[in-house]
Amino acid sequence: MTETPHLTFDPEAPGLSIGNLVVPNGADYGALSLPVFNLNKGEGPRLLITGGCHGNELEGPIVARRVIEWLPKAQTCGRVIIVPVLNPLALQACTRNTPIDGLNLNRVFPGRADGTVTERIADAVSGLLLPMVDTVFDLHSFGPTWDFPPAATTHPVADRDLMARTVRMADAFKLPATLLWEHDDTPGMFDTFAQTQGKVFICAEFGGGTVTSEALAIYEAGVRNALVALGLVQGESDYPTFRQRKSGQTLETLASDKLKSPAQGIFEPRCSVLDRIKQGDLIGILHPLVSLSTHSIHIRAPTTSIVCAIRSGLHVDRDEELALLARPLKG
Amino acid sequence: MTETPHLTFDPEAPGLSIGNLVVPNGADYGALSLPVFNLNKGEGPRLLITGGCHGNELEGPIVARRVIEWLPKAQTCGRVIIVPVLNPLALQACTRNTPIDGLNLNRVFPGRADGTVTERIADAVSGLLLPMVDTVFDLHSFGPTWDFPPAATTHPVADRDLMARTVRMADAFKLPATLLWEHDDTPGMFDTFAQTQGKVFICAEFGGGTVTSEALAIYEAGVRNALVALGLVQGESDYPTFRQRKSGQTLETLASDKLKSPAQGIFEPRCSVLDRIKQGDLIGILHPLVSLSTHSIHIRAPTTSIVCAIRSGLHVDRDEELALLARPLKG
Repeated sequence: MTETPHLTFDPEAPGLSIGNLVVPNGADYGALSLPVFNLNKGEGPRLLITGGCHGNELEGPIVARRVIEWLPKAQTCGRVIIVPVLNPLALQACTRNTPIDGLNLNRVFPGRADGTVTERIADAVSGLLLPMVDTVFDLHSFGPTWDFPPAATTHPVADRDLMARTVRMADAFKLPATLLWEHDDTPGMFDTFAQTQGKVFICAEFGGGTVTSEALAIYEAGVRNALVALGLVQGESDYPTFRQRKSGQTLETLASDKLKSPAQGIFEPRCSVLDRIKQGDLIGILHPLVSLSTHSIHIRAPTTSIVCAIRSGLHVDRDEELALLARPLKG
Repeated sequence: MTETPHLTFDPEAPGLSIGNLVVPNGADYGALSLPVFNLNKGEGPRLLITGGCHGNELEGPIVARRVIEWLPKAQTCGRVIIVPVLNPLALQACTRNTPIDGLNLNRVFPGRADGTVTERIADAVSGLLLPMVDTVFDLHSFGPTWDFPPAATTHPVADRDLMARTVRMADAFKLPATLLWEHDDTPGMFDTFAQTQGKVFICAEFGGGTVTSEALAIYEAGVRNALVALGLVQGESDYPTFRQRKSGQTLETLASDKLKSPAQGIFEPRCSVLDRIKQGDLIGILHPLVSLSTHSIHIRAPTTSIVCAIRSGLHVDRDEELALLARPLKG
């Protein structure tokens, strides 16, 4: 008997349903049961919130769990489906990719029903959950070796109307940064596929490094702001406080805005995220590991810009990314 | 011909010497040349500063490089030897332990001349550098999956006079925390061995997570404060600003102050480092991964204490450490 992806509850039933999305077994691994929260309050916006696409980005699963705590009392209309952990295998291994097949879940969409376990997860999400909603919030983080501000991001979308609606939705998170991010490695991404289906898709990139209680409070506030903007939840929205400021800005970064390391060495960051820098300002220093008499290399800003992401102090190889620069998005 | 550990310069020569500590080759790996800075200004305190004992703790190597920039003009007397990277093999691999032999350099002191490469590094440091100094600052960090305040730490020392001098030296860093840390895994540590030789040994535990420019500035200020206190550098010392405060406190944590996870799950931190908590206060929440209908476990403070370290939001196994509590050290 061939099993197909299915939900263990009726998603059309009114009110709250708690159950699982069953991803069928395959040649490489058994079936997975992904816990799903489904709150159906009738007519209104239809939203899917996902976390844990990458197993070493825990902000999403935790923020999803926090939203699940208060949403049943707060949601006034519409449908919200929440899957806190899309990839439990990667999460348990604390790895970006799935350890079973080595695949990055965010590069195999829309997946394959007869594929490896990562492809089967993508297939179940694409085929079952995505058609039920108009909007997706996929909660990521920038990774453990970067500093990055809490941000709602999107890649450029060819459909100009969808692009405009997507940027408006991203801005509604009221996070310190909204980022239009030109990326050169987009095939198979969840957002790329969802956009072909006409969905508004926001990828929240929630910082990087240590996941602290302060950071989680900011991220939760961002998601709540977006729920208010959609009309799913009533209330006021406000900018959360990030590094003593309550503000947000909409930025654009191009594929050419990546600063790469000119050599191997120890990278010392010399600026902070959201710093405004002028051409020639010091971004960081690359210290050679092998000698104290060889001069360190000063990494300077090629142009006036805003520091969108900066690498943690760590040993880097030549051509590894050190920083991502950005500038205000022209309206 | 059997090579022995040696320096490529005369450490007794007055003034600045830049060279290497040569760790001889062995059965498992070739010779290593560790870059060494040696500044000999005659009579006075004799200090060794080391970083990069663990390869995934980059604060130490970077702060050491920064001190090397200004020390030649600032040091007025005595001897300072700086080895920014004790374990280049682990640093290049971004791992705590040496990839060649799997050993933790901070558990093999005093090392063995005929041992594996990690043991040979320890042997060279113990035999050649340690006898030249009275005081050691070994610059570590708490590791990438924790939040921890910048702190100068020591384990308890049996010799009460040495203990008192060590705590005074640690306090002189004027970091947010000075920590007397009872640890149940001390054999083979660099500090344990150095203390048997009568040295004052401070282990700076510089935070955890992303290594940012703000954090590095705090750490550099702490080392400078300690150099001023030793009389090697002239100037004023002051508490650096950490999370909007300029203050320090001397804390004690016992082996029994570790909070361990009661189950497997996603840990959500609910408090911050240096928070004062009362018995029953919420420290964090453990969310089961497998179901949304199973209740999350609230982790509460067993006693009135100060949060000294708290785990990052991440997936943990049963009995993994979640937090380290502390209390003011009784004078």
